Amino acid sequence: MILVPYDATEPKTRLAPVLGPGERGAFAAAMLRDVLTAVDNADHSHEISVLATEPIDSALAGVDVDLTVDVDDRPLTPAVNAVLADFDEPVAVLTADLPLITPATVVRLLGAGGADDVVLAAGRGGGTNAFVARHGAFRVDYHGVSYRDHQEGAQAVGAGVVELDTRRLATDIDEPADLVEILVHGDQTRAGRWLADAGVALEITDGRATVVRDE
Amino acid sequence: MILVPYDATEPKTRLAPVLGPGERGAFAAAMLRDVLTAVDNADHSHEISVLATEPIDSALAGVDVDLTVDVDDRPLTPAVNAVLADFDEPVAVLTADLPLITPATVVRLLGAGGADDVVLAAGRGGGTNAFVARHGAFRVDYHGVSYRDHQEGAQAVGAGVVELDTRRLATDIDEPADLVEILVHGDQTRAGRWLADAGVALEITDGRATVVRDE
Repeated sequence: MILVPYDATEPKTRLAPVLGPGERGAFAAAMLRDVLTAVDNADHSHEISVLATEPIDSALAGVDVDLTVDVDDRPLTPAVNAVLADFDEPVAVLTADLPLITPATVVRLLGAGGADDVVLAAGRGGGTNAFVARHGAFRVDYHGVSYRDHQEGAQAVGAGVVELDTRRLATDIDEPADLVEILVHGDQTRAGRWLADAGVALEITDGRATVVRDE
Repeated sequence: MILVPYDATEPKTRLAPVLGPGERGAFAAAMLRDVLTAVDNADHSHEISVLATEPIDSALAGVDVDLTVDVDDRPLTPAVNAVLADFDEPVAVLTADLPLITPATVVRLLGAGGADDVVLAAGRGGGTNAFVARHGAFRVDYHGVSYRDHQEGAQAVGAGVVELDTRRLATDIDEPADLVEILVHGDQTRAGRWLADAGVALEITDGRATVVRDE
């Protein structure tokens, strides 16, 4: 199965310098729709499931993807581990804040590694943005530098560890500077169009580009 | 040929909050050695050349790689364009601040795209961290959001544009937060060992990991 955990309750609080509370919810929903659309358009036979902290009917408006929604209000780590413990088949987990994802990225992720491997795609700052667990004993721990913990956890249960080297899956959107990546590389995504409509634009300075909001 | 431009004059000024001027030079040299070692250990038959703003004998101490050093004190854009204009064969250009690079990454880069294509690997914030020019008319412009300019520039000369999706080449090291990536994913690189010796370490907070310096 392909599982997309989604914090519907108070998403993307670190974007507060740029977006208000309601906007953060709408923007998070746009990113979720980008992820689900890419997963749906990739060639695979996995079920798709959203693991949400509360019901998300409005976030899925306009999404024509065959999926189930499971509501679990526990923190991310126990909620994902409950799914991993339940399944005998490989489980791919993709966070919902990866708007640069494409069907090709999903295919690369699902095709990486072999039997008994755990495939890890790192996020910025030590996070784990996506993984495929092909070993039944692998469990997650999203606290702290999760990438390193997941490497060690996979080795501890006897799984092989395979790194998937992808910028598109490394680009999780948490902080205002991350929005630059959408404006440069994802202007045709739902998240990119949402930002453009909200007046969030690139600002070019001497170093890396930053974002400004015109209102 | 494989070209590695290197600012030997005043490298990595944006790391000033963490490293002093002499340290920035030593750290930049460690990253250069990581890049050159990965390029040398990858399977290919290209010449390797460092394009430096001034002579760099000390930065290359301990590097056992067959390479040439060309000194050109002009800014990056005209210096690289002079090389592109001189060569009839494909030219791969890799910036010198990519310590997470591995021989496998280099092989992926060199194998991407076909005749008349330009292969682009994006950096964070709109930059271009690596490319392969297989079209003789392609030129660079590193000012501003260079990735977008390079996409458009390649199309304007009739080249195909191929994106190489790689986190390792996307991770250029310019700002203190970038050091996290080395500490998490590159502790065995020369740059990683240099940081450990200098007392730069991970600090785990609620969001992404950051760095602290113990002195």
